[in-house]
Amino acid sequence: MNYTTQMDAAKKGIITKEMMIVAEKEGIPAEIIREGVAKGRIAIPANKNHTSISPEGIGEGLRTKINVNLGVSKDCNDIDLELRKVQMALDMKAEAIMDLSNYGKTHVFRERLVEMSTAMIGTVPVYDALGFYDKELKDIKAKEFLDVVDKHGRDGVDFVTIHAGMNRSTSETFLKNPRLMNIVSRGGSLMFAWMRLNNSENPFYEYYDELLDICAKYDITLSLGDACRPGAIADSTDPSQIKELIELGELTKRAWAKNVQVMIEGPGHMALNEIEANVILEKKLCHGAPFYVLGPLVTDVAPGYDHITGAIGGAIAASAGADFLCYVTPAEHLRLPDEQDVREGIIASKIAAHAGDISKGVKGARAWDNQMSHARQALDWPKMYELALDPDKAKAYRKDAVLEDEKTCSMCGKMCAVRTMQKVLNGEDVNILRQ
Amino acid sequence: MNYTTQMDAAKKGIITKEMMIVAEKEGIPAEIIREGVAKGRIAIPANKNHTSISPEGIGEGLRTKINVNLGVSKDCNDIDLELRKVQMALDMKAEAIMDLSNYGKTHVFRERLVEMSTAMIGTVPVYDALGFYDKELKDIKAKEFLDVVDKHGRDGVDFVTIHAGMNRSTSETFLKNPRLMNIVSRGGSLMFAWMRLNNSENPFYEYYDELLDICAKYDITLSLGDACRPGAIADSTDPSQIKELIELGELTKRAWAKNVQVMIEGPGHMALNEIEANVILEKKLCHGAPFYVLGPLVTDVAPGYDHITGAIGGAIAASAGADFLCYVTPAEHLRLPDEQDVREGIIASKIAAHAGDISKGVKGARAWDNQMSHARQALDWPKMYELALDPDKAKAYRKDAVLEDEKTCSMCGKMCAVRTMQKVLNGEDVNILRQ
Repeated sequence: MNYTTQMDAAKKGIITKEMMIVAEKEGIPAEIIREGVAKGRIAIPANKNHTSISPEGIGEGLRTKINVNLGVSKDCNDIDLELRKVQMALDMKAEAIMDLSNYGKTHVFRERLVEMSTAMIGTVPVYDALGFYDKELKDIKAKEFLDVVDKHGRDGVDFVTIHAGMNRSTSETFLKNPRLMNIVSRGGSLMFAWMRLNNSENPFYEYYDELLDICAKYDITLSLGDACRPGAIADSTDPSQIKELIELGELTKRAWAKNVQVMIEGPGHMALNEIEANVILEKKLCHGAPFYVLGPLVTDVAPGYDHITGAIGGAIAASAGADFLCYVTPAEHLRLPDEQDVREGIIASKIAAHAGDISKGVKGARAWDNQMSHARQALDWPKMYELALDPDKAKAYRKDAVLEDEKTCSMCGKMCAVRTMQKVLNGEDVNILRQ
Repeated sequence: MNYTTQMDAAKKGIITKEMMIVAEKEGIPAEIIREGVAKGRIAIPANKNHTSISPEGIGEGLRTKINVNLGVSKDCNDIDLELRKVQMALDMKAEAIMDLSNYGKTHVFRERLVEMSTAMIGTVPVYDALGFYDKELKDIKAKEFLDVVDKHGRDGVDFVTIHAGMNRSTSETFLKNPRLMNIVSRGGSLMFAWMRLNNSENPFYEYYDELLDICAKYDITLSLGDACRPGAIADSTDPSQIKELIELGELTKRAWAKNVQVMIEGPGHMALNEIEANVILEKKLCHGAPFYVLGPLVTDVAPGYDHITGAIGGAIAASAGADFLCYVTPAEHLRLPDEQDVREGIIASKIAAHAGDISKGVKGARAWDNQMSHARQALDWPKMYELALDPDKAKAYRKDAVLEDEKTCSMCGKMCAVRTMQKVLNGEDVNILRQ
């Protein structure tokens, strides 16, 4: 190969195999994809060692993608259960899986995941560092954090979340601007704590160039984490969050200079009316880098239903230009998600992504809806099931009902508006009480 | 009483008992409520014969309200089941219940409902007309439709949906502008069919003044229905829909001239990016009358999950100024909702309404979220449950998990960001692996 990373190839005018696949999937000329990757507006996270991947593009003009979080932890150390979640995510066509494993033999699960996952794979190396070294947080040496990234790269991880924007300067902004919920990013809080406990600069910030060299070696995409992601609607769009975003913009330019692809992670908890401004800010301050959002959750009061609060925020974010949605499950804030939670989280995120795609005019997005509406207009139930986001649920729901008329549903029976209109526009009588 | 309707009182400068209660509930001076009612920007649907009501205001500056649909039909003629749904709606603090009964002894259910419901009650008299007269649609005489409204008024119904905007002129616009899904409003399609079958003007339009006299007699609020509510995202914001909205604006002025309160019903299926424009249009074309939306559903492809597609659209609509959300359940497009569907529909609508209230700055809306965030920051689980929109679900979820640490949850265990930040900001060590 006469290039190192996708971005290096793109800048050299080379259209890679991965770009071709992305172009094909999106129905967009490969040259447009190449140009997007060259400018950093599109990322194609595809580690050279992840040979089973079916590459996807994330960024401007492309379909909004979704990510599924899973992984083993001390409270839930069941590799088989997590592998079933992986299979479900793949079956449901999630484009990315983040392995947030943080306990025990994480590499065993990670290897199985890389082997089986056609979806891109992300990790948060900091989560893994404690178990990796079997050391308490403060005892981990700065460069040891980098070695975990290298290990993940070698294993085939396509993108890594790195909280390099939580540097000394950002932490000063944070300390000067008290928040209701402080830092709720798990990796961000670990970095902040490590810095305080060791009275040192953030290792990923201090050794950022070395980190970039590791990323370039495997073509790992950097997902620059937002340690100051608001954890309460009271904390959103505050100086800490925006200061960190400015830092992430600087780090983006440095990554691109070394041909490392970048995504930017975003909020979080946030009032609905702030979401669009946050997307605009990210796209401006981070020079058009793809935006990867968690939620946003538009209210704090609905634990048990955060797949819905997140779908509201995610749809609005995607509509405004966010490129990648991290799923939120009903279990958020309460426990690790079980399989049913994962399923509900994926569906809610897919709804949000698709609603955003219709709104921002992604190529072909409306065609699916129009096919469904044609099927509805024809009262063609088998076709409606086939086109439904979740055919099984749709089928099960209608089957439960006792039907007055085979063609309609129990909501309106023979008062079905579609039936009434078909009859009257055909010049037929509209008998509702009697046949 | 020296006034007829709430609007009549408001115009005369009288602050009614109902206005006082609304003012108290909203934490807004009664004079502001009076002024809103006088101008038609706030409606207080409260039939004089509905003595059990706890009045609510719907409109500018007030909390977004939600409505629950239920009622007996041929496919599901179980009065006890519907009464259990009513009790659930009341327990969950829905502000309105629409009784869409359309089969058999509708008045038996309606009477029980009026007796027990502190929530305002709405109906769609046209649904009831066929059973009321035991006649096929085309055989019902124009003025017989009005008699059903009078009967509902006598029974204590607080607001009625009337599709008076689907007049000859609107039906011509509809016929000239073909749609993917024609008319999907049940009442709208019945009116359109009746007009075609009898070659006559819409009876509610033709005898609108008489209808207004009936409404004024009982202080029924008119909920002017949108027959051209789009049933597919392909059909939204089209000439038929907007033409009908212009008609509804004219009908609004005529109602206000007779001191009849008005709400305007709205979409429907609609791409996310059209929602704000639709709210602005309604508020302009209908002179600030409260906007009552069904959804909007931001995609057509998710049957089984339309409580989510509707929550996305509803939150955006509420944020932009919609005042009243009709709930959508997971059963929409598939069957009549069962009790669990009703429950999920109510929760999703409440999330949408509250997210909208935070966004549009309704008084006190953020206080609830801030209390929740304080409880989260303190890892105070009993308080979190108490403040949750659905305490039972939140409690059940966390109880299912095996916990490494009593204070945290199984999502992060001892890597809990809140725990980490508390320790490090207190100058303590952050032990994660070992106690």
